[in-house]
Amino acid sequence: MTPDPNDPIALTQALIRCASVTPADEGALDLLQTALTGLGFACTRLPFGHPPDGPVDNLFATIAGGSGPHFAFAGHSDVVPAGDLAGWSEDPFAGDIRDGFIVGRGAADMKGALAAMVAATARHLAKGPLQGRISFIITGDEEGPATFGTTMMLDWMEANGLVPDLCLVGEPTSQHGLGDMMKIGRRGSLNAWITVNGAQGHVAYPTRADNPITRLVAILTDLKARVLDTGNDWFQPSNLEITDVSVGNPATNLIPAQARARINIRFNNEHSGAALADWIRATVAAHAPSAQVEVKISGEAFLTEPGALSALVGDAVHAVTGRTPELSTTGGTSDARFIRRLCPVVEFGLPGQSMHKVDEHAAVADIAGLAAIYGVLLARALSG
Amino acid sequence: MTPDPNDPIALTQALIRCASVTPADEGALDLLQTALTGLGFACTRLPFGHPPDGPVDNLFATIAGGSGPHFAFAGHSDVVPAGDLAGWSEDPFAGDIRDGFIVGRGAADMKGALAAMVAATARHLAKGPLQGRISFIITGDEEGPATFGTTMMLDWMEANGLVPDLCLVGEPTSQHGLGDMMKIGRRGSLNAWITVNGAQGHVAYPTRADNPITRLVAILTDLKARVLDTGNDWFQPSNLEITDVSVGNPATNLIPAQARARINIRFNNEHSGAALADWIRATVAAHAPSAQVEVKISGEAFLTEPGALSALVGDAVHAVTGRTPELSTTGGTSDARFIRRLCPVVEFGLPGQSMHKVDEHAAVADIAGLAAIYGVLLARALSG
Repeated sequence: MTPDPNDPIALTQALIRCASVTPADEGALDLLQTALTGLGFACTRLPFGHPPDGPVDNLFATIAGGSGPHFAFAGHSDVVPAGDLAGWSEDPFAGDIRDGFIVGRGAADMKGALAAMVAATARHLAKGPLQGRISFIITGDEEGPATFGTTMMLDWMEANGLVPDLCLVGEPTSQHGLGDMMKIGRRGSLNAWITVNGAQGHVAYPTRADNPITRLVAILTDLKARVLDTGNDWFQPSNLEITDVSVGNPATNLIPAQARARINIRFNNEHSGAALADWIRATVAAHAPSAQVEVKISGEAFLTEPGALSALVGDAVHAVTGRTPELSTTGGTSDARFIRRLCPVVEFGLPGQSMHKVDEHAAVADIAGLAAIYGVLLARALSG
Repeated sequence: MTPDPNDPIALTQALIRCASVTPADEGALDLLQTALTGLGFACTRLPFGHPPDGPVDNLFATIAGGSGPHFAFAGHSDVVPAGDLAGWSEDPFAGDIRDGFIVGRGAADMKGALAAMVAATARHLAKGPLQGRISFIITGDEEGPATFGTTMMLDWMEANGLVPDLCLVGEPTSQHGLGDMMKIGRRGSLNAWITVNGAQGHVAYPTRADNPITRLVAILTDLKARVLDTGNDWFQPSNLEITDVSVGNPATNLIPAQARARINIRFNNEHSGAALADWIRATVAAHAPSAQVEVKISGEAFLTEPGALSALVGDAVHAVTGRTPELSTTGGTSDARFIRRLCPVVEFGLPGQSMHKVDEHAAVADIAGLAAIYGVLLARALSG
């Protein structure tokens, strides 16, 4: 039974009870589709992909009224694994309420926000004839590789003439209280795998060998030493972390033949992924001309310059909570990095401190507050 | 059937046919014991140890005549594994002769030398009454951990009043031709295991984590940067190699909790293992106060100052081959590092280029030449 779409709390609980650990769905998209269909939305399921990263199911839902802008909510119905079950004080997929909090995987990231979007929309539609268009871009592949999710939905939307004018992603951007932070951009991210080949030999005769670890340590020292930038008005400084080093040589008397490392760079809008990749390759080549470097750019840095959309969201937050959200670009990547190519996009949602952890939770009052904020946002976005 | 102890070639072949891959014996010590008993030696088997590094069998054999010095031959009957059998052109344990070479595991390191010692002794004893004492210190645990081999035999010899005046270890010290190099000392060796603990976290929030790899790379850079020394008259410069680094973090978005590395230092007599261990610990602590450092000193550097013993060996080599051996301290460790505490010790044996490799071999002529050199050495050592 589908809960009342006007009740974001019951809807959040029902969504949590679908154990949609990425890439599984377990009925989460059906639940949303039933609720939105009931509100008059035209729903299209967009399954994409093939093994190993797919197939993945996605839901695009849209409803149009009189003339007005096209506003899109975007989000994901998949969640990360529960992790250590023994660490949870409640069943992570029961959606129970305890002391005013819904505890469960996805409560904060981001089933509470999906429920708030639906409830805000239901209430908005109840107020009178719709001016403009409201769409839901819901993917089941945000926590996974994100190969067959939002990015392919956007291609489909473009091909079908359904490009929004503005978009709100419901990621949990609030920090300590609902409304204290929204995100107007994100840093880019890239991973690089470095493989240095040397020449194996006995450690007592180093001149007859070529130790790849010596070269790799010099490379990593150089990479880590560079100050990429000092940040700017909207971004914190870019940062490089060495996330893995592996040699795997069990023999104490042997200089190994190969050494590998992996780095991650979170970079702001003063860099492009391609330029950083070039710099990594040049730095590696200076120490190890025959080394292999593989770079994967997960996303470029982007910024939705503070303007009409961020003001609209900020005003809605202030109207409900009395807070003025900080405009931030911190944190990991989100699907906003894809949506930005179609229209202005900002992110605003629940407090996210518990996301991806055991006992992930969202306050009942915050989910209700978020539904109210999304409602004000819809009203103002579609009134112009 | 035990081969004629006067024939070092047949004896080498017979020893190779005992597949004494460390710590197995497969009859090698019995063969030597039978030969030496036949020559009038008193033989004592000295099995020591317990799992996992033992038990290991060892043989001490000694014969005494009129007054004179106590000369000891030292060596090992165990061999390293054959390795890739497909790479061998002969059965590594058949001891066959091909084109003037005995091909087989242990031919160079060091069953050929053991056979040469026995043959030289047999011929020396045949010349007339023995003046002084000849001993054989033969361990079955040199290629393994060397925990229950020579070092424990020396304890037993001390306890039984059988300390030699001078000792010759039959390791394959020659390089390109029999007699071109002897060893009068060895570098020391130590291994150190460094474990840096940090704080795991998401790579997008590095200030909330503490990346142990960053600290480890700084430690390794500092360790590698120090010029330990520039060598001296008898030793090449000390050298440090990083032999392993391991993190084992599969997640690209995670800063790991721990990073490990292992280093090896081959050091000359300008250092002690303890002082180097202190330096390693201080260098690590400067970057990572909570890191763990485990140091194992395999052997200290030692030098038998050029003098009577090295002159004796050099003269014997020259008398047989016309070559004057270079006095070297290069290469790996050997059991001479233990024997040095009892008496002056030098090492001289066959060309060792093929040791530990596939198609290990020794020239029939070199084994015969080595028996002649050992014979001259015995005659001169026991004449004074």
